Amino acid sequence: MNDADNSADILFRLADTLATRLPAQGGDPDASYSAKLLARGPDAFLKKIGEEATELVMAAKDNAPDRIVYETADLWFHSLIALAHYNLRPEDVLRELARREGTSGLAEKASRGSGS
Amino acid sequence: MNDADNSADILFRLADTLATRLPAQGGDPDASYSAKLLARGPDAFLKKIGEEATELVMAAKDNAPDRIVYETADLWFHSLIALAHYNLRPEDVLRELARREGTSGLAEKASRGSGS
Amino acid sequence: MNDADNSADILFRLADTLATRLPAQGGDPDASYSAKLLARGPDAFLKKIGEEATELVMAAKDNAPDRIVYETADLWFHSLIALAHYNLRPEDVLRELARREGTSGLAEKASRGSGS
Amino acid sequence: MNDADNSADILFRLADTLATRLPAQGGDPDASYSAKLLARGPDAFLKKIGEEATELVMAAKDNAPDRIVYETADLWFHSLIALAHYNLRPEDVLRELARREGTSGLAEKASRGSGS
Repeated sequence: MNDADNSADILFRLADTLATRLPAQGGDPDASYSAKLLARGPDAFLKKIGEEATELVMAAKDNAPDRIVYETADLWFHSLIALAHYNLRPEDVLRELARREGTSGLAEKASRGSGS
Repeated sequence: MNDADNSADILFRLADTLATRLPAQGGDPDASYSAKLLARGPDAFLKKIGEEATELVMAAKDNAPDRIVYETADLWFHSLIALAHYNLRPEDVLRELARREGTSGLAEKASRGSGS
Repeated sequence: MNDADNSADILFRLADTLATRLPAQGGDPDASYSAKLLARGPDAFLKKIGEEATELVMAAKDNAPDRIVYETADLWFHSLIALAHYNLRPEDVLRELARREGTSGLAEKASRGSGS
Repeated sequence: MNDADNSADILFRLADTLATRLPAQGGDPDASYSAKLLARGPDAFLKKIGEEATELVMAAKDNAPDRIVYETADLWFHSLIALAHYNLRPEDVLRELARREGTSGLAEKASRGSGS
Protein backbone atom coordinates (compact mmCIF):
# COMPACT_ATOMS: atom_id res chain seq x y z
CA MET A 1 0.00 0.00 0.00
CA ASN A 2 1.19 3.50 -0.72
CA ASP A 3 0.43 6.90 0.72
CA ALA A 4 -2.57 7.36 -1.48
CA ASP A 5 -4.46 4.40 -0.08
CA ASN A 6 -6.86 6.48 1.89
CA SER A 7 -7.41 8.89 -0.95
CA ALA A 8 -10.53 8.84 -2.98
CA ASP A 9 -8.58 7.93 -6.10
CA ILE A 10 -9.46 4.37 -5.20
CA LEU A 11 -13.03 5.11 -6.26
CA PHE A 12 -11.82 6.11 -9.71
CA ARG A 13 -9.44 3.17 -10.01
CA LEU A 14 -12.22 0.78 -9.02
CA ALA A 15 -14.55 2.40 -11.56
CA ASP A 16 -11.88 1.97 -14.24
CA THR A 17 -11.48 -1.68 -13.35
CA LEU A 18 -15.22 -2.31 -13.19
CA ALA A 19 -15.65 -0.80 -16.66
CA THR A 20 -13.43 -3.59 -17.99
CA ARG A 21 -15.61 -6.18 -16.26
CA LEU A 22 -18.73 -5.27 -18.24
CA PRO A 23 -19.91 -8.06 -20.55
CA ALA A 24 -19.61 -5.68 -23.51
CA GLN A 25 -15.95 -5.13 -22.61
CA GLY A 26 -15.22 -8.82 -22.40
CA GLY A 27 -15.51 -9.16 -18.64
CA ASP A 28 -15.09 -12.83 -17.74
CA PRO A 29 -17.78 -14.07 -15.32
CA ASP A 30 -15.61 -17.04 -14.38
CA ALA A 31 -12.58 -14.94 -13.48
CA SER A 32 -14.12 -12.07 -11.56
CA TYR A 33 -16.81 -11.63 -8.94
CA SER A 34 -17.76 -8.25 -10.41
CA ALA A 35 -17.90 -9.58 -13.97
CA LYS A 36 -20.18 -12.36 -12.76
CA LEU A 37 -22.59 -9.91 -11.13
CA LEU A 38 -22.52 -7.63 -14.17
CA ALA A 39 -23.14 -10.58 -16.50
CA ARG A 40 -26.12 -11.70 -14.46
CA GLY A 41 -27.70 -8.27 -14.79
CA PRO A 42 -29.23 -5.59 -12.55
CA ASP A 43 -31.22 -7.80 -10.17
CA ALA A 44 -28.04 -9.61 -9.15
CA PHE A 45 -26.13 -6.54 -8.02
CA LEU A 46 -29.16 -4.54 -6.88
CA LYS A 47 -30.08 -7.35 -4.52
CA LYS A 48 -26.61 -7.02 -3.04
CA ILE A 49 -27.19 -3.32 -2.41
CA GLY A 50 -30.24 -4.17 -0.31
CA GLU A 51 -28.29 -6.89 1.45
CA GLU A 52 -25.19 -4.79 2.17
CA ALA A 53 -27.32 -1.89 3.42
CA THR A 54 -28.91 -4.30 5.90
CA GLU A 55 -25.49 -5.59 6.95
CA LEU A 56 -24.28 -2.05 7.53
CA VAL A 57 -27.34 -1.38 9.70
CA MET A 58 -26.64 -4.52 11.75
CA ALA A 59 -22.94 -3.68 12.18
CA ALA A 60 -23.94 -0.21 13.36
CA LYS A 61 -26.49 -1.60 15.82
CA ASP A 62 -23.68 -3.80 17.17
CA ASN A 63 -21.48 -0.74 17.60
CA ALA A 64 -18.70 -2.59 15.78
CA PRO A 65 -16.39 -0.06 14.09
CA ASP A 66 -14.42 -2.56 12.01
CA ARG A 67 -17.58 -4.11 10.63
CA ILE A 68 -19.13 -0.69 10.00
CA VAL A 69 -16.13 0.22 7.85
CA TYR A 70 -16.18 -3.17 6.15
CA GLU A 71 -19.90 -3.11 5.35
CA THR A 72 -19.78 0.50 4.17
CA ALA A 73 -16.98 -0.53 1.82
CA ASP A 74 -19.15 -3.40 0.58
CA LEU A 75 -22.10 -1.06 0.09
CA TRP A 76 -20.07 1.53 -1.80
CA PHE A 77 -18.37 -1.17 -3.85
CA HIS A 78 -21.69 -2.62 -5.01
CA SER A 79 -22.90 0.94 -5.73
CA LEU A 80 -19.89 1.27 -8.02
CA ILE A 81 -20.88 -1.95 -9.78
CA ALA A 82 -24.36 -0.52 -10.34
CA LEU A 83 -22.89 2.74 -11.64
CA ALA A 84 -20.67 0.80 -14.06
CA HIS A 85 -23.64 -1.10 -15.47
CA TYR A 86 -25.44 2.16 -16.21
CA ASN A 87 -22.29 3.77 -17.65
CA LEU A 88 -22.12 6.19 -14.76
CA ARG A 89 -19.09 7.19 -12.74
CA PRO A 90 -18.34 7.90 -9.08
CA GLU A 91 -17.43 11.39 -10.29
CA ASP A 92 -21.11 11.90 -11.09
CA VAL A 93 -22.05 11.06 -7.52
CA LEU A 94 -19.32 13.23 -6.05
CA ARG A 95 -20.39 16.12 -8.27
CA GLU A 96 -23.96 15.73 -7.02
CA LEU A 97 -22.72 15.79 -3.44
CA ALA A 98 -20.63 18.90 -4.19
CA ARG A 99 -23.58 20.55 -5.90
CA ARG A 100 -25.69 20.19 -2.77
CA GLU A 101 -22.90 21.59 -0.64
CA GLY A 102 -22.12 24.39 -3.01
CA THR A 103 -25.42 25.87 -3.97
CA SER A 104 -27.43 26.38 -0.84
CA GLY A 105 -25.93 24.61 2.08
CA LEU A 106 -25.62 21.03 3.08
CA ALA A 107 -28.49 20.99 5.49
CA GLU A 108 -31.19 22.29 3.20
CA LYS A 109 -30.17 20.27 0.16
CA ALA A 110 -29.86 17.08 2.11
CA SER A 111 -33.19 17.71 3.73
CA ARG A 112 -34.88 18.25 0.45
CA GLY A 113 -33.06 15.36 -1.17
CA SER A 114 -33.90 12.81 1.42
CA GLY A 115 -37.42 14.02 1.82
CA SER A 116 -38.21 12.62 -1.59
CA MET B 1 -18.54 25.20 -8.56
CA ASN B 2 -14.83 24.89 -9.09
CA ASP B 3 -12.67 22.37 -10.88
CA ALA B 4 -12.49 20.12 -7.87
CA ASP B 5 -16.20 19.47 -7.70
CA ASN B 6 -15.98 15.98 -9.06
CA SER B 7 -13.04 15.14 -6.87
CA ALA B 8 -13.38 12.93 -3.88
CA ASP B 9 -12.31 15.75 -1.61
CA ILE B 10 -16.00 16.38 -1.21
CA LEU B 11 -16.20 13.22 0.90
CA PHE B 12 -13.63 14.64 3.30
CA ARG B 13 -15.23 18.08 3.36
CA LEU B 14 -18.61 16.53 4.11
CA ALA B 15 -17.08 14.42 6.86
CA ASP B 16 -15.50 17.54 8.36
CA THR B 17 -18.84 19.32 8.30
CA LEU B 18 -20.73 16.34 9.71
CA ALA B 19 -18.28 16.12 12.61
CA THR B 20 -19.41 19.60 13.64
CA ARG B 21 -23.05 18.48 13.53
CA LEU B 22 -22.61 15.87 16.25
CA PRO B 23 -24.53 16.66 19.45
CA ALA B 24 -21.27 16.56 21.40
CA GLN B 25 -19.89 19.23 19.09
CA GLY B 26 -22.87 21.48 19.52
CA GLY B 27 -24.67 20.50 16.34
CA ASP B 28 -28.01 22.28 16.26
CA PRO B 29 -30.92 19.94 15.40
CA ASP B 30 -33.09 22.91 14.45
CA ALA B 31 -30.58 24.37 12.03
CA SER B 32 -29.35 21.30 10.18
CA TYR B 33 -30.89 18.16 8.75
CA SER B 34 -27.75 16.17 9.61
CA ALA B 35 -27.62 17.51 13.17
CA LYS B 36 -31.25 16.50 13.59
CA LEU B 37 -30.60 12.94 12.45
CA LEU B 38 -27.47 12.70 14.61
CA ALA B 39 -29.34 14.04 17.63
CA ARG B 40 -32.10 11.48 17.19
CA GLY B 41 -29.57 8.68 17.25
CA PRO B 42 -28.66 5.61 15.18
CA ASP B 43 -32.12 4.33 14.33
CA ALA B 44 -32.96 7.65 12.67
CA PHE B 45 -30.09 7.63 10.20
CA LEU B 46 -29.85 3.85 9.83
CA LYS B 47 -33.47 3.76 8.73
CA LYS B 48 -32.53 6.25 6.04
CA ILE B 49 -29.81 3.93 4.79
CA GLY B 50 -32.39 1.19 4.26
CA GLU B 51 -34.70 3.67 2.60
CA GLU B 52 -32.09 5.21 0.30
CA ALA B 53 -30.81 1.77 -0.73
CA THR B 54 -34.37 0.91 -1.78
CA GLU B 55 -34.69 4.17 -3.69
CA LEU B 56 -31.45 3.46 -5.52
CA VAL B 57 -32.75 0.02 -6.46
CA MET B 58 -35.97 1.55 -7.80
CA ALA B 59 -34.12 4.23 -9.78
CA ALA B 60 -31.94 1.52 -11.29
CA LYS B 61 -34.94 -0.63 -12.20
CA ASP B 62 -36.36 2.45 -13.94
CA ASN B 63 -33.12 2.87 -15.88
CA ALA B 64 -33.07 6.53 -14.85
CA PRO B 65 -29.45 7.79 -14.82
CA ASP B 66 -30.15 11.10 -13.10
CA ARG B 67 -32.06 9.42 -10.30
CA ILE B 68 -29.41 6.69 -9.97
CA VAL B 69 -26.78 9.37 -9.40
CA TYR B 70 -29.07 11.26 -7.05
CA GLU B 71 -30.01 8.24 -4.95
CA THR B 72 -26.43 6.99 -4.79
CA ALA B 73 -25.46 10.43 -3.50
CA ASP B 74 -28.22 10.16 -0.88
CA LEU B 75 -27.05 6.68 0.11
CA TRP B 76 -23.41 7.72 0.41
CA PHE B 77 -24.37 10.88 2.26
CA HIS B 78 -26.31 8.95 4.88
CA SER B 79 -23.41 6.49 5.13
CA LEU B 80 -21.22 9.48 5.97
CA ILE B 81 -23.67 10.50 8.70
CA ALA B 82 -23.42 7.00 10.17
CA LEU B 83 -19.63 7.09 9.98
CA ALA B 84 -19.63 10.47 11.77
CA HIS B 85 -21.75 9.11 14.62
CA TYR B 86 -19.28 6.26 15.18
CA ASN B 87 -16.29 8.59 14.88
CA LEU B 88 -15.23 6.96 11.66
CA ARG B 89 -14.07 8.64 8.49
CA PRO B 90 -14.59 8.08 4.77
CA GLU B 91 -10.82 7.59 4.66
CA ASP B 92 -11.35 4.37 6.63
CA VAL B 93 -13.74 3.10 3.99
CA LEU B 94 -11.47 4.11 1.12
CA ARG B 95 -8.53 2.43 2.83
CA GLU B 96 -10.58 -0.77 3.14
CA LEU B 97 -11.44 -0.60 -0.56
CA ALA B 98 -7.77 0.01 -1.41
CA ARG B 99 -6.73 -2.87 0.82
CA ARG B 100 -8.94 -5.27 -1.09
CA GLU B 101 -7.59 -4.01 -4.37
CA GLY B 102 -4.01 -4.02 -3.24
CA THR B 103 -3.50 -7.28 -1.46
CA SER B 104 -5.02 -10.02 -3.50
CA GLY B 105 -7.11 -8.65 -6.26
CA LEU B 106 -10.45 -6.98 -6.43
CA ALA B 107 -12.43 -9.98 -7.48
CA GLU B 108 -11.38 -12.34 -4.74
CA LYS B 109 -11.65 -9.86 -1.89
CA ALA B 110 -15.01 -8.64 -3.02
CA SER B 111 -16.21 -12.18 -3.38
CA ARG B 112 -15.13 -13.07 0.08
CA GLY B 113 -16.47 -9.87 1.50
CA SER B 114 -19.89 -10.08 0.06
CA GLY B 115 -20.20 -13.77 0.64
CA SER B 116 -20.38 -13.11 4.34
CA MET C 1 -61.73 -6.78 20.00
CA ASN C 2 -63.36 -10.14 19.62
CA ASP C 3 -62.11 -13.69 19.80
CA ALA C 4 -61.05 -13.70 16.20
CA ASP C 5 -58.56 -10.89 16.56
CA ASN C 6 -55.54 -13.11 16.41
CA SER C 7 -56.93 -15.06 13.48
CA ALA C 8 -55.61 -14.59 10.03
CA ASP C 9 -58.97 -13.34 8.83
CA ILE C 10 -57.57 -9.91 9.52
CA LEU C 11 -55.35 -10.33 6.46
CA PHE C 12 -58.41 -10.89 4.30
CA ARG C 13 -60.35 -8.04 5.89
CA LEU C 14 -57.43 -5.68 5.36
CA ALA C 15 -57.13 -6.81 1.75
CA ASP C 16 -60.85 -6.14 1.27
CA THR C 17 -60.46 -2.67 2.72
CA LEU C 18 -57.33 -1.90 0.71
CA ALA C 19 -59.11 -2.88 -2.50
CA THR C 20 -61.55 -0.03 -1.84
CA ARG C 21 -58.65 2.38 -1.40
CA LEU C 22 -57.35 1.91 -4.93
CA PRO C 23 -57.63 5.04 -7.10
CA ALA C 24 -59.73 3.09 -9.60
CA GLN C 25 -62.17 2.26 -6.80
CA GLY C 26 -62.46 5.84 -5.68
CA GLY C 27 -60.01 5.67 -2.81
CA ASP C 28 -59.63 9.15 -1.33
CA PRO C 29 -55.98 10.14 -0.82
CA ASP C 30 -57.02 12.85 1.63
CA ALA C 31 -59.02 10.53 3.84
CA SER C 32 -56.79 7.48 4.05
CA TYR C 33 -53.10 6.78 4.47
CA SER C 34 -53.37 3.68 2.26
CA ALA C 35 -55.29 5.52 -0.45
CA LYS C 36 -52.62 8.19 -0.44
CA LEU C 37 -49.83 5.65 -0.92
CA LEU C 38 -51.78 3.83 -3.63
CA ALA C 39 -52.51 7.10 -5.42
CA ARG C 40 -48.85 8.06 -5.42
CA GLY C 41 -47.95 4.78 -7.10
CA PRO C 42 -45.52 1.89 -6.59
CA ASP C 43 -42.41 3.82 -5.57
CA ALA C 44 -44.28 5.33 -2.62
CA PHE C 45 -45.31 2.03 -1.03
CA LEU C 46 -42.28 0.04 -2.19
CA LYS C 47 -40.02 2.52 -0.46
CA LYS C 48 -41.97 1.84 2.71
CA ILE C 49 -41.29 -1.90 2.35
CA GLY C 50 -37.55 -1.22 2.34
CA GLU C 51 -37.95 1.12 5.28
CA GLU C 52 -40.11 -1.19 7.37
CA ALA C 53 -37.79 -4.13 6.70
CA THR C 54 -34.94 -2.03 8.07
CA GLU C 55 -37.00 -1.05 11.11
CA LEU C 56 -37.79 -4.70 11.78
CA VAL C 57 -34.09 -5.53 11.61
CA MET C 58 -33.30 -2.75 14.09
CA ALA C 59 -36.05 -3.81 16.50
CA ALA C 60 -34.72 -7.36 16.35
CA LYS C 61 -31.15 -6.21 17.00
CA ASP C 62 -32.50 -4.37 20.04
CA ASN C 63 -34.17 -7.55 21.25
CA ALA C 64 -37.38 -5.59 21.71
CA PRO C 65 -40.37 -7.95 21.38
CA ASP C 66 -43.07 -5.28 21.24
CA ARG C 67 -41.27 -3.39 18.50
CA ILE C 68 -40.56 -6.62 16.59
CA VAL C 69 -44.27 -7.36 16.54
CA TYR C 70 -45.07 -3.77 15.64
CA GLU C 71 -42.57 -3.54 12.80
CA THR C 72 -43.53 -6.94 11.41
CA ALA C 73 -47.12 -5.72 11.36
CA ASP C 74 -45.98 -2.61 9.49
CA LEU C 75 -44.00 -4.72 7.03
CA TRP C 76 -46.87 -7.11 6.36
CA PHE C 77 -49.31 -4.21 6.11
CA HIS C 78 -47.27 -2.47 3.44
CA SER C 79 -46.90 -5.83 1.65
CA LEU C 80 -50.69 -5.97 1.55
CA ILE C 81 -50.78 -2.48 0.03
CA ALA C 82 -48.39 -3.66 -2.68
CA LEU C 83 -50.49 -6.78 -3.29
CA ALA C 84 -53.61 -4.61 -3.62
CA HIS C 85 -51.97 -2.40 -6.23
CA TYR C 86 -51.12 -5.43 -8.36
CA ASN C 87 -54.56 -6.96 -7.86
CA LEU C 88 -53.11 -9.77 -5.81
CA ARG C 89 -54.41 -11.18 -2.55
CA PRO C 90 -52.88 -12.44 0.69
CA GLU C 91 -54.49 -15.77 -0.22
CA ASP C 92 -52.03 -15.98 -3.13
CA VAL C 93 -49.13 -15.62 -0.72
CA LEU C 94 -50.55 -18.11 1.76
CA ARG C 95 -51.15 -20.59 -1.05
CA GLU C 96 -47.50 -20.22 -2.11
CA LEU C 97 -46.38 -20.85 1.47
CA ALA C 98 -48.66 -23.90 1.67
CA ARG C 99 -47.38 -25.18 -1.66
CA ARG C 100 -43.80 -25.16 -0.39
CA GLU C 101 -44.85 -26.96 2.75
CA GLY C 102 -47.03 -29.44 0.93
CA THR C 103 -45.03 -30.59 -2.02
CA SER C 104 -41.53 -31.42 -0.91
CA GLY C 105 -40.87 -30.14 2.54
CA LEU C 106 -40.42 -26.73 4.02
CA ALA C 107 -36.68 -26.82 4.29
CA GLU C 108 -35.89 -27.70 0.71
CA LYS C 109 -38.38 -25.31 -0.86
CA ALA C 110 -37.37 -22.44 1.31
CA SER C 111 -33.75 -23.13 0.61
CA ARG C 112 -34.31 -23.13 -3.08
CA GLY C 113 -36.63 -20.16 -2.94
CA SER C 114 -34.41 -17.92 -0.98
CA GLY C 115 -31.29 -18.95 -2.77
CA SER C 116 -32.50 -17.17 -5.85
CA MET D 1 -53.27 -29.47 -1.73
CA ASN D 2 -56.51 -29.34 0.15
CA ASP D 3 -59.19 -26.70 0.50
CA ALA D 4 -57.40 -24.99 3.35
CA ASP D 5 -54.30 -24.19 1.39
CA ASN D 6 -55.13 -20.56 0.95
CA SER D 7 -56.18 -20.19 4.56
CA ALA D 8 -54.03 -18.41 7.02
CA ASP D 9 -53.67 -21.56 9.08
CA ILE D 10 -50.49 -22.06 7.12
CA LEU D 11 -48.94 -19.23 9.12
CA PHE D 12 -49.66 -21.09 12.34
CA ARG D 13 -48.49 -24.44 10.96
CA LEU D 14 -45.24 -22.85 9.78
CA ALA D 15 -44.76 -21.21 13.18
CA ASP D 16 -45.29 -24.61 14.85
CA THR D 17 -42.73 -26.19 12.57
CA LEU D 18 -40.23 -23.36 13.00
CA ALA D 19 -40.48 -23.67 16.79
CA THR D 20 -39.13 -27.21 16.43
CA ARG D 21 -36.22 -25.91 14.36
CA LEU D 22 -34.84 -23.74 17.14
CA PRO D 23 -31.44 -24.88 18.43
CA ALA D 24 -32.90 -25.20 21.93
CA GLN D 25 -35.49 -27.58 20.54
CA GLY D 26 -32.95 -29.73 18.80
CA GLY D 27 -33.34 -28.23 15.33
CA ASP D 28 -30.76 -29.83 13.03
CA PRO D 29 -28.84 -27.25 10.96
CA ASP D 30 -27.80 -29.94 8.51
CA ALA D 31 -31.31 -31.17 7.87
CA SER D 32 -33.25 -27.93 7.57
CA TYR D 33 -32.71 -24.55 5.96
CA SER D 34 -34.63 -22.85 8.77
CA ALA D 35 -32.71 -24.68 11.49
CA LYS D 36 -29.48 -23.58 9.82
CA LEU D 37 -30.52 -19.92 9.82
CA LEU D 38 -31.75 -20.13 13.42
CA ALA D 39 -28.52 -21.81 14.52
CA ARG D 40 -26.43 -19.09 12.90
CA GLY D 41 -28.32 -16.43 14.85
CA PRO D 42 -30.12 -13.14 14.18
CA ASP D 43 -27.77 -11.61 11.62
CA ALA D 44 -28.24 -14.60 9.34
CA PHE D 45 -32.01 -14.38 9.08
CA LEU D 46 -32.24 -10.59 9.47
CA LYS D 47 -29.97 -10.19 6.47
CA LYS D 48 -32.43 -12.31 4.53
CA ILE D 49 -35.26 -9.96 5.49
CA GLY D 50 -33.36 -7.06 3.93
CA GLU D 51 -32.61 -9.17 0.88
CA GLU D 52 -36.14 -10.48 0.39
CA ALA D 53 -37.60 -6.99 0.81
CA THR D 54 -35.32 -5.82 -2.00
CA GLU D 55 -36.36 -8.77 -4.17
CA LEU D 56 -40.01 -7.96 -3.59
CA VAL D 57 -39.36 -4.36 -4.63
CA MET D 58 -37.63 -5.53 -7.82
CA ALA D 59 -40.40 -8.00 -8.68
CA ALA D 60 -42.93 -5.20 -8.19
CA LYS D 61 -40.95 -2.81 -10.39
CA ASP D 62 -40.99 -5.55 -13.05
CA ASN D 63 -44.76 -5.83 -12.73
CA ALA D 64 -44.36 -9.60 -12.41
CA PRO D 65 -47.31 -11.01 -10.43
CA ASP D 66 -45.90 -14.50 -9.95
CA ARG D 67 -42.63 -13.15 -8.60
CA ILE D 68 -44.43 -10.61 -6.40
CA VAL D 69 -46.34 -13.47 -4.76
CA TYR D 70 -43.19 -15.56 -4.52
CA GLU D 71 -41.05 -12.84 -2.98
CA THR D 72 -43.79 -11.78 -0.57
CA ALA D 73 -43.97 -15.42 0.56
CA ASP D 74 -40.18 -15.40 1.04
CA LEU D 75 -40.39 -12.14 3.00
CA TRP D 76 -43.18 -13.38 5.25
CA PHE D 77 -41.45 -16.73 5.70
CA HIS D 78 -38.25 -15.11 6.91
CA SER D 79 -40.32 -12.84 9.16
CA LEU D 80 -41.73 -16.02 10.71
CA ILE D 81 -38.19 -17.31 11.29
CA ALA D 82 -37.36 -14.05 13.10
CA LEU D 83 -40.53 -14.30 15.18
CA ALA D 84 -39.63 -17.89 16.12
CA HIS D 85 -36.19 -16.85 17.31
CA TYR D 86 -37.70 -14.23 19.62
CA ASN D 87 -40.40 -16.63 20.83
CA LEU D 88 -43.07 -14.60 19.13
CA ARG D 89 -45.96 -15.86 17.05
CA PRO D 90 -47.71 -14.76 13.87
CA GLU D 91 -50.80 -14.44 16.09
CA ASP D 92 -49.04 -11.51 17.81
CA VAL D 93 -48.62 -9.77 14.48
CA LEU D 94 -52.19 -10.45 13.39
CA ARG D 95 -53.47 -9.17 16.72
CA GLU D 96 -51.48 -5.96 16.21
CA LEU D 97 -52.98 -5.57 12.74
CA ALA D 98 -56.47 -6.20 14.16
CA ARG D 99 -55.86 -3.73 16.95
CA ARG D 100 -55.08 -0.98 14.46
CA GLU D 101 -58.17 -1.82 12.47
CA GLY D 102 -60.38 -2.15 15.51
CA THR D 103 -59.66 0.84 17.63
CA SER D 104 -59.64 3.92 15.49
CA GLY D 105 -59.61 3.05 11.86
CA LEU D 106 -57.09 1.52 9.54
CA ALA D 107 -55.99 4.72 7.91
CA GLU D 108 -55.10 6.68 11.01
CA LYS D 109 -53.34 3.85 12.81
CA ALA D 110 -51.31 2.93 9.79
CA SER D 111 -50.36 6.51 9.27
CA ARG D 112 -49.19 6.91 12.81
CA GLY D 113 -47.49 3.55 12.82
CA SER D 114 -45.49 3.99 9.71
CA GLY D 115 -44.71 7.59 10.36
CA SER D 116 -42.44 6.49 13.14
